[in-house]
Amino acid sequence: MQETEKYYWEDFHLGDTAPIGEQHLDAVEMVAFARAYDPQPFHIDEDAARQTLYGGLIASGWYTVALVMRMMVDSYLNRSASLGSPGVEQVRWLKPVRPGDTIRATRTVVETRPSASRPEMGLVKTRWEVFNQHHELVMTMEGVQMFRRRNAGKAR
Amino acid sequence: MQETEKYYWEDFHLGDTAPIGEQHLDAVEMVAFARAYDPQPFHIDEDAARQTLYGGLIASGWYTVALVMRMMVDSYLNRSASLGSPGVEQVRWLKPVRPGDTIRATRTVVETRPSASRPEMGLVKTRWEVFNQHHELVMTMEGVQMFRRRNAGKAR
Repeated sequence: MQETEKYYWEDFHLGDTAPIGEQHLDAVEMVAFARAYDPQPFHIDEDAARQTLYGGLIASGWYTVALVMRMMVDSYLNRSASLGSPGVEQVRWLKPVRPGDTIRATRTVVETRPSASRPEMGLVKTRWEVFNQHHELVMTMEGVQMFRRRNAGKAR
Repeated sequence: MQETEKYYWEDFHLGDTAPIGEQHLDAVEMVAFARAYDPQPFHIDEDAARQTLYGGLIASGWYTVALVMRMMVDSYLNRSASLGSPGVEQVRWLKPVRPGDTIRATRTVVETRPSASRPEMGLVKTRWEVFNQHHELVMTMEGVQMFRRRNAGKAR
């Protein structure tokens, strides 16, 4: 692998925005995820779900997050000098996501700063937005990712 | 099912705290989750993981979240009049979680209020704390859950 192919902290700039992928929601996988990790009736049982305010099966919010995580990894994280993440905030599930939907996501850099404690590292705060096939915003999330710096400890 | 067995919004009180479960981390399931949703080297490849700052395989932060979600469902959500969640905030991955670890979680009610727009609904903000077998805090999360009210529109 050529180091120059990777994204380092210096390669993320405030305001950068890009699509990161799209995914059709398969009912079988969606329900399998919920059976394992979030077995509430409106996520796993078609009949029970129809009786709820959702009117039918909806994805676990964590399944939507997991699909977006996979988009991040495929679209840029696995070609970056990623050092992981200390956390996320503001996960907002705005509209139900349902079997058969196709979601797509974008990323936007909302903050970038060097680590105060570790000169080899920089932090990038990103906002992700997720839309369905009707162009409705269904989920947003903000989180911080840590990346190795190309020029440790220097100004960018 | 007797309605009286369920937790309604009125049954959650500021400061209430309780354990919600524990889970041994199985390496096979942990890696399968990461291969599907978060295939970064330090989550899926033992050899590659050893070369990183983590020194070995660590769980995807979303896998830890998923295990805690399952604890929530089993310990109280599926016996409650849950109406889902609008989102979470402040997920903090404080220490790596590794195969073979046993994690346990607690919940604490940090805010409770009626819905301003929907008299049949109330909101409960909860903080979850996750510890490993060494009693180290490995993850925290705060989020809001919506519950049906036993006495819609009245003071509790």
